[in-house]
Formats: sequence, structure tokens, C-alpha cells
Amino acid sequence: MTLNTRGLRAAFLAGALAFAAQAPARAADEAAVKDFLLENGLEVVVIPDHRAPIVTHMVWYKIGSADEPPGKSGIAHFFEHLMFKATSNNAAGEFDRAVADIGGSNNAFTSYDYTVFHETVPPSALEEMMGFEADRMRNLVLTDDVIKTERDVILEERRSRIDNDPQAVLDEEVDATLWQNQPYRIPVIGWMQEMEQLNREDAKAFYDTYYRPNNAVVIVAGDVDPDAVKAMAERTYGKVARGPDLRPRIRPVEPEQNTKRTVTLTDARVSVPSFSTQWVVPSYHTAKPGEAEALDLLAEILGGDNRSRLYQQLVVKQGIASGAGAFFQGTMLDATNFTVYGSPRGDAKLSEVEAAVDAEVARIAKDGVTGDELERAKTRYVRSMVFARDKQDDMANMYGSTLATGGNVKDVEEWPDRIRKVTAAEVKAAAARYLVLDRSTTGYLLPQQQAGN
Amino acid sequence: MTLNTRGLRAAFLAGALAFAAQAPARAADEAAVKDFLLENGLEVVVIPDHRAPIVTHMVWYKIGSADEPPGKSGIAHFFEHLMFKATSNNAAGEFDRAVADIGGSNNAFTSYDYTVFHETVPPSALEEMMGFEADRMRNLVLTDDVIKTERDVILEERRSRIDNDPQAVLDEEVDATLWQNQPYRIPVIGWMQEMEQLNREDAKAFYDTYYRPNNAVVIVAGDVDPDAVKAMAERTYGKVARGPDLRPRIRPVEPEQNTKRTVTLTDARVSVPSFSTQWVVPSYHTAKPGEAEALDLLAEILGGDNRSRLYQQLVVKQGIASGAGAFFQGTMLDATNFTVYGSPRGDAKLSEVEAAVDAEVARIAKDGVTGDELERAKTRYVRSMVFARDKQDDMANMYGSTLATGGNVKDVEEWPDRIRKVTAAEVKAAAARYLVLDRSTTGYLLPQQQAGN
Repeated sequence: MTLNTRGLRAAFLAGALAFAAQAPARAADEAAVKDFLLENGLEVVVIPDHRAPIVTHMVWYKIGSADEPPGKSGIAHFFEHLMFKATSNNAAGEFDRAVADIGGSNNAFTSYDYTVFHETVPPSALEEMMGFEADRMRNLVLTDDVIKTERDVILEERRSRIDNDPQAVLDEEVDATLWQNQPYRIPVIGWMQEMEQLNREDAKAFYDTYYRPNNAVVIVAGDVDPDAVKAMAERTYGKVARGPDLRPRIRPVEPEQNTKRTVTLTDARVSVPSFSTQWVVPSYHTAKPGEAEALDLLAEILGGDNRSRLYQQLVVKQGIASGAGAFFQGTMLDATNFTVYGSPRGDAKLSEVEAAVDAEVARIAKDGVTGDELERAKTRYVRSMVFARDKQDDMANMYGSTLATGGNVKDVEEWPDRIRKVTAAEVKAAAARYLVLDRSTTGYLLPQQQAGN
Repeated sequence: MTLNTRGLRAAFLAGALAFAAQAPARAADEAAVKDFLLENGLEVVVIPDHRAPIVTHMVWYKIGSADEPPGKSGIAHFFEHLMFKATSNNAAGEFDRAVADIGGSNNAFTSYDYTVFHETVPPSALEEMMGFEADRMRNLVLTDDVIKTERDVILEERRSRIDNDPQAVLDEEVDATLWQNQPYRIPVIGWMQEMEQLNREDAKAFYDTYYRPNNAVVIVAGDVDPDAVKAMAERTYGKVARGPDLRPRIRPVEPEQNTKRTVTLTDARVSVPSFSTQWVVPSYHTAKPGEAEALDLLAEILGGDNRSRLYQQLVVKQGIASGAGAFFQGTMLDATNFTVYGSPRGDAKLSEVEAAVDAEVARIAKDGVTGDELERAKTRYVRSMVFARDKQDDMANMYGSTLATGGNVKDVEEWPDRIRKVTAAEVKAAAARYLVLDRSTTGYLLPQQQAGN
């Protein structure tokens, strides 16, 4: 049930590409997006989308794993589970049953910067959903029994999703190496030895601090009328008392990076070796104007899809890689990472693939990008946003993740324009400034027999 | 003014070796060590040593950089400076002048687990020293002006001691890589961007929490009578009110380590390349009985001095290294590190030296140690402790560091016996269990031209 944000924009793009074959029916009218604040501090964003009688309702809590107290890793994600247990008004499972009874779907996910609960239902059920969400925002019954049962569940989730997966184990230790100080170094699911110690007192303190209307954003995307949504929100969420003001989300930040680091996991379960190299770069929330947009286009040109330099050079021309690419995770509250990766094909060695990727990185930092490839990248990128807008849950995600990481509705709406304004010089400057191998962290996943690779 | 504990035992040994040429005059009588608790919770340890009319007086606060709140790195060390400023009873510099006037010396140091203030003076000045220390334990005047001035001093200290020294920069990033979760990952001096933000409120909260008699140990070693020291302590420290009980020192602990990591710094200022490989191992405070003692002997046999395997093999026999060795930093509150290191000589390559060190590590883990070399190591080790006891400040340090990291007087006194009981099988088991290359972190310091080494 966890979505690591690393895949979020990648997911947008994948969704967008899958959609590309169809002509969009009728895209949501972005000008009609309404944003309002209830008296208790809850922000509500309504994105009308009348193509189908369906509505996506999401509650974004501005609390993620990077906000956890020291030694309590995993507690943000723990709530992704606890929130489905009994409240003082509803037995455990009642909310789920209500969603299932009307043929809807629901789920939740946790990331470094937010924890999200969402339902997709017919519009007639929206107010009922709001009622359930408003109820569990404050009325969870956190007993020792509930804590123990759900703690066993998250421990098992860690075992099956991380400890049994060499790539996941490597990713954790790469993150702990890349980030020297910033809490993105700690896994969203938590470190096992700390998860085992999470108790009722920890949970109660966390819930009472962060599960408050003034720490949440509700996104409603679908076949609804903004005024009607506002009235519903007031009747449901509006009854929840505002909590104490929260301290600003100021977290430990990253010091200067001065070294080149590597992290190697050799495991018998690995069949094909792979590597990824990461750099610390600014996010949309921390970058100076235009810089995060330039990093998005840099990722697009360098390794965004099959037309990217990495794919064309390594997979198509040289034929040494089965895959190679780049991504930038811009929608984060603090500094974020820019990543390139590759995996060999046939008899090619991992070191050849890495050298070829490094050569492309060095080339783009030295020579920059052509006006032509920048224009094509902008077109692809902006089109991917349009396609994302065309998919109700991607659209809701785009607004929710932006608003939960320090942005606002205008930031989402003006994003395409800001992308269009990026110059080739800005893309080159971003590459030259940030993609420096002497200050990178590379993870290697190796099969047992290639330990010396 | 900072002493990183990493060098502490190494310093003991160095001191001991320098002493070895002389016949010890009259060693302090360890049976006479007295330990008592004042009513306000202050622990006092008196180590009579009547060889010279001198006394070493140390105040060990059980607060170090690993106890700092998130984002406030450097604040423990900040107090190493602030404690020399004005109190409500004494102007800034008055304490220093009093020490200088009687021909004494004083200083302070900070580590991960403690902050220490100490004076060496004639016994007649001991009570005056206690008075000054008791005064600054609670009566510091922390103004914005004092904070600003001393913050500039610690920032400059960081620039000159860390940022201008490639080895120091590398060490910081190796620590941040070795430790994935435990706060030993954060430099004692602090990260620059966090030091810059330290303010009066932070300092006041830190001082009021930790600078209390019930969070300190006073060590008095020298030409004194324990009963007289007790009376003086009661007249001075005894007047300081006990503070609120402190929470147990439970810090985030290290998760399982699953990867091999490297950290490389290439710098034009480096003339000779070097490397060091580190592993996470238990400390005296976290180990099961006998394990830390086995690690101490393992370090001694593998790389403790000129008679060690690494030195004999790499420097004497193969002639490829200018230096090579091993150390174990056992006196820590949490898990600690075991380190091997080497540097090439003449035309030898760093990679040859590293391979030869790795081979010795693999050999000792596979074949263990001989009974003969274990006996010789025990003799050397125990003798080094005797010599340390013979030097008043080493002796005081040994008691202070043990008591500030969860040990007691008996632990120090029985240490030699526990070392004598270690078996060859236990040394081999420690090597086999902990010195696994696939779970190590290696730092490389390279000259610019050998970047590809």
C-alpha cells in the first residue's frame, strides 16, 4: 500500500504514454479548479471533470516519513494501516465495506512528505466518504491490541517487500549513503529494529499532532459542482476542530557533498547486473526559479524515454544495454535526487554500460542540448502533463503532491508555461552544476558470480 | 579543543609507549579508587596518585554530539566554547586567569558521547577549581552577543580544521556513509549549515537539560585524600540543585548492514594516497561479555603496532606500505567501528596495499590467531593499560570515558582480567563475524593525478 514518490512522476508519464494512443475525450477544464479553506484550516481543492459519473476523493496529510521523530521510523506509514481500524463511531472494516457496497475503490499510500487516503466512487457517495474521512481524522481508537496486530502486519510487509528483494535492500542503503543528513535517507517503511518498538504512546502522540484539519488538503476530482462540494465539506470536515498550530516543516538539510560514493550488493538472486548513479539536486520547493524545470527537461532529454540520448546511444546504437535512462523527482519538500541508470545486454559488461552512461552525462554537461531537442522535449513533457490531466487520479495526484510539498494550485496550472520558458543554456547549466561524478553516489546490484565486476 | 574519541585509545597507547623507556616511579594504587554520589546525583571518582604534588580535575558531562536534537548538530561542541564565557558570578576569562595564575593548565574536549572540562593544578587549588566548575554548571549567562561571537569562532574552527583538510572532509563523509542511522554519522563539530543557525534559545534549552549535577561525573586524580575531596565536592558541587531526571540515552540504532560501500575524495592537496576500511562492531557497552575484549585483541594482533601482522607483512616483508594498521574504538555508548588502513610506499599502488590488507583480514577470519601471538598481544595490551595508569591524565580519561559511556569503576579495574581471559577461538569468531568485506565501508583519499587509481 506504499507508493514511494520516486516513481510518482514516472507513473504519471507511464500513464500518459498508455493514454497517448487515444484521442482525449474531453480534458478537465483547468481554469475551473476551485481552492478554498474551511474555518478549521482544512484546504479543499475541487477539480471538475464531467466525462464520467465518478469522483476521486483524496485526503493528503502533510506528514511523511521525513517528519518522523528520531528512532521512530515507520510511524508515518504505520498510520496508513491504523487509519483503517475502528473509530469511536465506526467499527473496523465499516468504511471499506461502504466503499465496496457502492462498487467503489479505496486505498492509501505514504511517502517522505505526505500520507494519503483516497476513494473513487460515484458522486452520490462523496459526502458519505467525506464523513468517514472526517471521522477517522480524529476518532481513531488506538488500543494496545490494534497497535500489536497492525505492527505485525507492517513488519511482515517490510520482510516481504524489502528484505526479500535485493533491489529494495540496495535502494535503502543507497538512500542512506546519498543523503548524509536529510531524512530522505531513512526508508519510508522504517528500519526493522525501530518498527518493532513502535507503541501506542508513539502512535497517539503522532496522531494527535498531525491528523488535524489544519494539516491536510482534500482533493476532489470528478463529476461534481464546486459549491456543492464546499457545502458537503463544511457539513463533514467542517465539524472537526482545528488542532494546535504546527511548527514549520524545517528538517535537517544536506551538507555540501564532497565525495564519490558507491554501494554494492551482491546476491545470488540477482540474474542481470545493474547500476544507478544519483546526485543531490534541488526540488521544485527548494530550487531557484526555473532550475527545477531545467532539471525536468534535462532528465527528459538525457533519459526520459526511447527517444532520449541514453536510450538511443546505449540501447539502439551501441546495443550494449537492455535499458538505460534518467529521472528527476522534483515534487519533494526538500532537496531531491537526479538519477541515471543502466543494465547490460548480452555479453556487454556492466562497467561498459556505466562508462557509456557517464560519457553521455559528461557530454550534456559540457556541450549542452540543441534547440531542436529542447523543443521536442518540452513538447513531450507538456503533452505528458496534458495526458496526466486527462486521467482523473493522475490529475488529483498532481495537485495533491504539489500542495503537500509547499506548492499551490497556481504552481500546477503554470507548470507547463514555466517548462516552455526554459532555455538550452539553463539545461546545460543544471547539468554542469549538478551532474558531477566526483560528488555522486552509485549503487551496483550484482549477481553472485560477477562479484568482481 | 575537540578530541574525537576515535583517537582516544590510540592516544593511551602512544602515551604508554613513550613512557615505556622509563621505570614507572610508583604506579597509582588502583585499589584505593573511591567512588561516591552526592545527594544531587553528581558522581565523584577519586584516584589517589601521590607521586607529585599535582591534581587532575575533570568534569565529564554525559552529553555528546550523538545526543543532539535533529538539525542542531554542533551544539554539544558549542558548549565547549560557551562554558568559558561569563557566569552570573564570574566575568569571562576569570576562570582561565585563576588557572594561569597558579601555573596550572586547563582545557575541554567534546566527543559523540560526552563533553569534558578539565584542569591540572596544585592540590591546594582543587577546591577553587571545583567552585568555578560548579558555578559554570548552572550560572552561564547566555546572551545573543555571546552566542554570535562564539558561533563565529566555531564556524571558523570548522573551516580551518575540517574544510581545509581533505582527510577530515573524507572522514566526515565516510562516517556519514558507514552509519546509516546511528547518530555517530554526524560530525562532532557539526554540519556547517546547522552550526550557522544555532541560536540562544537552542543553547538555553540544551544547557538547562544537560548541564546538571545528575548528568555529570567528576574525576579527581592526584595527590589528594578521598575524604577531603568529598568534603570539598559537597561544599562546591553539593550546592548545585539536582535537575529533572533525564530520559535514558536511547538513540536511533544501526539497521542491518547489507552492502559494501566506498567513499572517494580526490584532491590536489593530497600527495600520498591512502585508504581505510571500517566495519560496524559492538562497543564495550553494547557487546555481549568478552566480545569487545576479543575485538581489542584482534585489533592489537592485526594492526596494533610494529609487531602486528599488517605492519610485519606490508611494511617489513612486502615493503609495499609506508604504514598499515588496525584499531577498535571500544569505549563508546553505542555500536562502534573497527578500522584497518594502509598507504603505499615507493612505486607500490594503493590497490596492492588494499589487497594485501584484505588478505590479512581474510586470513585472520579464516585461520584465527596462534596461542603464542594471543599471549603476546594480551601482555602488550595489559601493559599498555598499566602504563596508561601511570600517567595521571590518561588514567583520569580512562575512568571518565568509561563512566560516561555506561560503565563503572569496576569495569575499569577488571578490564585487564577480562582481557586475560579471551581465548583464541573468541578472537577468530569476532573476526569471522564482523570483518566481512561485503559489509564494509572503505574511504579513499587520492591525489588529483591518481583519480583513476
